[in-house]
Amino acid sequence: MRLDIVTCQPELLTSPFAVSIVKRAQEKGLAEIHVHDLRRFAINKHGQIDDYVFGGGAGMVLRVEPIAACFDELLAQRSYDAVIYMTPDGETLRQPLVNRLSLAGNLLILCGHYKGVDERIRKAYITHEISVGDYVLSGGELGAAILVDAVVRLLPGVLGNEESALSDSFQDNLLAPPVYTRPAEWRGEKVPDILLSGNTPLVETWRHEQAVERTRQRRPDLLAE
Amino acid sequence: MRLDIVTCQPELLTSPFAVSIVKRAQEKGLAEIHVHDLRRFAINKHGQIDDYVFGGGAGMVLRVEPIAACFDELLAQRSYDAVIYMTPDGETLRQPLVNRLSLAGNLLILCGHYKGVDERIRKAYITHEISVGDYVLSGGELGAAILVDAVVRLLPGVLGNEESALSDSFQDNLLAPPVYTRPAEWRGEKVPDILLSGNTPLVETWRHEQAVERTRQRRPDLLAE
Repeated sequence: MRLDIVTCQPELLTSPFAVSIVKRAQEKGLAEIHVHDLRRFAINKHGQIDDYVFGGGAGMVLRVEPIAACFDELLAQRSYDAVIYMTPDGETLRQPLVNRLSLAGNLLILCGHYKGVDERIRKAYITHEISVGDYVLSGGELGAAILVDAVVRLLPGVLGNEESALSDSFQDNLLAPPVYTRPAEWRGEKVPDILLSGNTPLVETWRHEQAVERTRQRRPDLLAE
Repeated sequence: MRLDIVTCQPELLTSPFAVSIVKRAQEKGLAEIHVHDLRRFAINKHGQIDDYVFGGGAGMVLRVEPIAACFDELLAQRSYDAVIYMTPDGETLRQPLVNRLSLAGNLLILCGHYKGVDERIRKAYITHEISVGDYVLSGGELGAAILVDAVVRLLPGVLGNEESALSDSFQDNLLAPPVYTRPAEWRGEKVPDILLSGNTPLVETWRHEQAVERTRQRRPDLLAE
């Protein structure tokens, strides 16, 4: 999979893509991540990429020309399965959407910033608008980092046997059950006996019950789907 | 505000805290961010902080001792308004929770990783469990970065006049209206006349109508609240 990310803050994305599973995916050649600095396509030698919002009010808006120039350069080189804009008014990211996007070959991701991008860019280029949650962030960069992490870890060969993606929360609409590790007793608190029993079927039953109970208590909306 | 973040991947958080609004908040002395490496509290000289999950199955679990040692050190120095665990089975982060947390003096944030942390840590220390969304990530670090960004930008004095936090999406349960900037015409697409009219009351009415319409089309759930 190839991921192209267009941003006015490329430096924000340096460390999230340089460690852990995303790093490993790139080293294995399973994911190729390219971060493009919008300022390279600035409209003048002052590096301008944004401007005041028409109609008045606070906040800057990313101009059309730098984004269009960057997109046109990339789109001339390859086609993309999705051209994504990270924005708080997009579709809320959930695991099924992550699963679908993980099947793509090429993804192009635009990070919003300031008050957002000129609406005409959205109409002209964007195929998917995605929000990582109902909260306000300084820009779309952390959202893009989340999308990349969530998608890349699903690519075949990225996770080792130690890290099954399928048993995680949300893949089966259940939250994960509680987990414990050594020591078996800590400050008087013991690990549930059943987990030490060695009886795998009983353990699996307990985990399922715990997962259902936790989901019912915390996220009954997931059980209703 | 002081934010202490406990993680086994401190290097992932380097760049998100070194740029943009989070950087500015620290430079102005409005936010103090400390990232603590769990490996400094490893249980042996091999740097071990995790172990196999009791009951069998894939995935490693963060052990109690390193987290407890790190927390005890921090809790001996000051009290925290909230001890937060970033986890997919936590309360879904939304703007009202961000607003509440922005009033805190000290926040302590633990990033989950691998299969999560030993359940006994959650019972012993954690006051708030928070999820940034219904998707699976490699760890809680990006979630912590999102929480920090969302909270810090609300601290008085962090945003300039150009960046009103209150007119953003979610602060009024409406998505933001479309925004436009120069040029007034681009590839035949014109900015709506009303935004160029100079009639501020008309512009405000148009924006509100657009915000309501966009919310109705994309997120009717927000209007129902």
